[in-house]
Amino acid sequence: MPDDGKASTPRVDFQVHPSRYRHWRLAAGGPVATLTMDVDEQGGIVPGYELKLNSYDLGVDIELYDAVQRLRFEHPEVRAVVVTSGKEKVFCAGANIRMLAAAPHPWKVNFCKFTNETRNGIEDATVSSGQAYLAAVNGTASGGGYELALACEHIMLIDDRSSAVALPELPLLGVLPGTGGLTRVTDKRHVRRDLADYFATKSEGIGGKKAVQWRLVDEAVPRAAWPQTVAERAGELAERSTRAASATARGIELTPLGKTRTDTEIAYRHVSATLSRERGLVEITVRGPETGAPDGIAAVHQEGAGFWTLAMTRELDDLILDLRTNELELGTWVFRTLGDPGLVLAHDRLLLDHADDWLANEIIGYLKRTIKRLDVTSRSLLALIEPGSCFAGSLLELALAADRSYQLAGVFEDDDGAEPAGVTVGPMNLGPLPMGNGLTRLQTRYLGDDKGLAEVEKRAGERLLAEDAERLGLVTFAPDDIDWDDEVRIAVEERASFSPDALSGMEANYRFAGPETMETKIFGRLTAWQNWIFNRPNAAGPDGALRRFGTGQRPQFDRKRA
Amino acid sequence: MPDDGKASTPRVDFQVHPSRYRHWRLAAGGPVATLTMDVDEQGGIVPGYELKLNSYDLGVDIELYDAVQRLRFEHPEVRAVVVTSGKEKVFCAGANIRMLAAAPHPWKVNFCKFTNETRNGIEDATVSSGQAYLAAVNGTASGGGYELALACEHIMLIDDRSSAVALPELPLLGVLPGTGGLTRVTDKRHVRRDLADYFATKSEGIGGKKAVQWRLVDEAVPRAAWPQTVAERAGELAERSTRAASATARGIELTPLGKTRTDTEIAYRHVSATLSRERGLVEITVRGPETGAPDGIAAVHQEGAGFWTLAMTRELDDLILDLRTNELELGTWVFRTLGDPGLVLAHDRLLLDHADDWLANEIIGYLKRTIKRLDVTSRSLLALIEPGSCFAGSLLELALAADRSYQLAGVFEDDDGAEPAGVTVGPMNLGPLPMGNGLTRLQTRYLGDDKGLAEVEKRAGERLLAEDAERLGLVTFAPDDIDWDDEVRIAVEERASFSPDALSGMEANYRFAGPETMETKIFGRLTAWQNWIFNRPNAAGPDGALRRFGTGQRPQFDRKRA
Repeated sequence: MPDDGKASTPRVDFQVHPSRYRHWRLAAGGPVATLTMDVDEQGGIVPGYELKLNSYDLGVDIELYDAVQRLRFEHPEVRAVVVTSGKEKVFCAGANIRMLAAAPHPWKVNFCKFTNETRNGIEDATVSSGQAYLAAVNGTASGGGYELALACEHIMLIDDRSSAVALPELPLLGVLPGTGGLTRVTDKRHVRRDLADYFATKSEGIGGKKAVQWRLVDEAVPRAAWPQTVAERAGELAERSTRAASATARGIELTPLGKTRTDTEIAYRHVSATLSRERGLVEITVRGPETGAPDGIAAVHQEGAGFWTLAMTRELDDLILDLRTNELELGTWVFRTLGDPGLVLAHDRLLLDHADDWLANEIIGYLKRTIKRLDVTSRSLLALIEPGSCFAGSLLELALAADRSYQLAGVFEDDDGAEPAGVTVGPMNLGPLPMGNGLTRLQTRYLGDDKGLAEVEKRAGERLLAEDAERLGLVTFAPDDIDWDDEVRIAVEERASFSPDALSGMEANYRFAGPETMETKIFGRLTAWQNWIFNRPNAAGPDGALRRFGTGQRPQFDRKRA
Repeated sequence: MPDDGKASTPRVDFQVHPSRYRHWRLAAGGPVATLTMDVDEQGGIVPGYELKLNSYDLGVDIELYDAVQRLRFEHPEVRAVVVTSGKEKVFCAGANIRMLAAAPHPWKVNFCKFTNETRNGIEDATVSSGQAYLAAVNGTASGGGYELALACEHIMLIDDRSSAVALPELPLLGVLPGTGGLTRVTDKRHVRRDLADYFATKSEGIGGKKAVQWRLVDEAVPRAAWPQTVAERAGELAERSTRAASATARGIELTPLGKTRTDTEIAYRHVSATLSRERGLVEITVRGPETGAPDGIAAVHQEGAGFWTLAMTRELDDLILDLRTNELELGTWVFRTLGDPGLVLAHDRLLLDHADDWLANEIIGYLKRTIKRLDVTSRSLLALIEPGSCFAGSLLELALAADRSYQLAGVFEDDDGAEPAGVTVGPMNLGPLPMGNGLTRLQTRYLGDDKGLAEVEKRAGERLLAEDAERLGLVTFAPDDIDWDDEVRIAVEERASFSPDALSGMEANYRFAGPETMETKIFGRLTAWQNWIFNRPNAAGPDGALRRFGTGQRPQFDRKRA
């Protein structure tokens, strides 16, 4: 367990493969797949705790994320996914408490963020990929275990007088059910708030008919009827699925990422990053396609994981997770792109022209979820738009996700043969990649300024130079060669001089201007409260509830309410 | 300054009067009133700091709240309110930094909450009372000073090359502009998020034309034209006002509250509270009207501050503020009512029948804001519905605002001549008293259950006994005499045994099921992040930015991003 950076922390690797899973079994082959959670007690991602009772840590969730992704891409035939437990009498006991108790604050926060993203991804698979998730809760589901079930479309609970669903975090640990629990119970399942209050204070949970009556689960099924009823329900979900793939469609393999990683460089085929520890900075370059878009959607299937948009997205996704988890002190990420904007737009067009193809749909959805990760990443994001760049369509989202963008007006003096930098709004910016708040990044940017938004939309397809882009509000600043270096340097240095916590808080507010959804409420309201609690002595202090759990000693609380 | 309860803390009194203001001047008499901020440097509410540059503390804000209230009730003729500064070259420097640096965590949180409520009240006066607020920013408005301006309908900034608006919290103090700043800049003023980011990192702020261009203010006015332009704009706002009072209408005086206060009892005419320190409990009783509603709205004007709804609301408002600020360790508030439900409903009806009367409108609005305070109060709220109670209409909102409610089925054995307890839904529960999320408490309660809501609405006007009320979902539990004492005792004891922080977090999530508004975003997303930051060593630790401000030493930050 990383102990607040004082000891050396293991570098977390997010690349796994079903053949190496320690905690899950993935069975696919027909319209219904089954994901069986069977956590290896000795398989914690860091030493110091045992993963008893199907409790989980980041390593368990990394495998779950991988499985959800592979089901989308490698299994077009799958139309419903049953999540169940391989243990007797327990579905999942939630996040491992000893892990939480020992973890430093940023680890806890990062862990919860990734878990939340994975669960949002499960809901997104149900809604957008036609792979509906069914929680077959065949034993008690506690805390994060019940929260996993809450992310599923349908929850079945075995009715055996001992199995229950529970949110025991508050009474047992002095923290919140913070990976969606408090939000999904009321806003998704529509459990009445006072019943939800009672439920979240009863550590033993609620099972049987009452769990159904209170809407905590959809049905309680006697043991004798369990296997058959699970199969029936899964069949019904598969039947109703809108998945756009035929039963005989062939998946594409998510082949291993080619990645090299040192202390100062992370490199993939299309994405690379330079880590500057002294400056607290990561400089990320995303390279556009090297060739034109393939000729038709069949060729995309042929290219599979090699298709530029998918390959680049996978690399970006891995980089975000790597940096977020392993490089806590690199507080500013600078994004550059390199390539031909026309080729980016051509790839976008090919995908959008075939959005009813299951694979095109999956690639667009994956890009959507990956850019969303940036919105909830607690790092300052800057985009530098320079000559030779390709901030167009899908890659323009990087600039729109950034806290600020700088576009060079003109060219650099020492490179006066270059074309000035442009940005191009494309169809990918006008709908297919919404933020968690339900708006596109352009709509969020022009919140309350319909005229400004309309003006930008009218210019879609046009390569906009710095002066135009700035006037239209697409970029923040448009310094020329004389000012460029200073302005960028000052921005980076300033960011490194500010309180990291205040920056996280500011960005988490500004990035989510406008409406809130269940998803943004989970990352905003719920997560922010949980982070506060995680940082309070009543939870994390030596006498706090998290640390005292299982010791036989009662926690000592400062009783003052704040 | 209360130092986390170790030293004796002064008991804060929220009752003030314009004749005793130390920090504000209120000038009314025609359609335009002026509120001049002229803070007495030596007038801090606790010792240890000077309120320089029109910086403020809780005491300053208590006077502002009083002024806003009196303008509503005592000045029906006022249709626009100019907020300006009585100092040279400074409008308001925001919350006093030394006060913030020295204050214990719950004091900071409470202070910000009250400040937020007062600012929401200013916006509510503009929208619901036809008293539009104009910020005449005649010098630099920094931090909370600019946030005060942001709560106004129109912001004018003097254009003198030195005056600016600024949010310097992040660069100077390592905290957020947390009293609405980050939310109102983007969601109300529609400042573009990247410009807002830049603005909140520039401690010197932005003035003149750029402030207008970026939408930070509505206009920048040269000094020579200042007095005339302020008068013009105020006149225009007054002209457009929909205030339902004639120019010659007479206000009603908010006479001093009759209040007695000991360590264990707080009593007013209609509201009383018993404080049990050992149990961490406050038992609050609200008494219904003793007589029928007055005969017509003229009689309400006649009764003035003596009219039951207004008197009760004022008392409840003061009690909430007193307990929230002065009794941090009393974590559970139990609400009872006593009286005739018919009389409550008759008072409700009188007000609603005359909702176009300015005073009736003000009383309903005040009740709305007071119950809203409960929604954001970090205490567990229980309602006990017993024989002799009057949870009907406006007083039913107390039960609907509670985290749980218990209604006795039948009567107590030793009182078998009593009528069983009833609850009655009235028109006051069906619209006039929305929560911050824009829904009524009933709509929030039945979120996603339109059928349940319709069924309850159909029973409006009917006195519902425990079994019915429970079945309809209006109350949480309906124990009978045999179980009552145990169930209630267990609920209270349990609450006292849980982590106070986890309870605050859980309640802040469950109470706001459903949609979010700018108001709930301020109390949810923004406040929760600010509370986290207030609790982090980077802000509040001995080397943190808040504590080091003004010492000449730079803060030491843990650079890890979380």
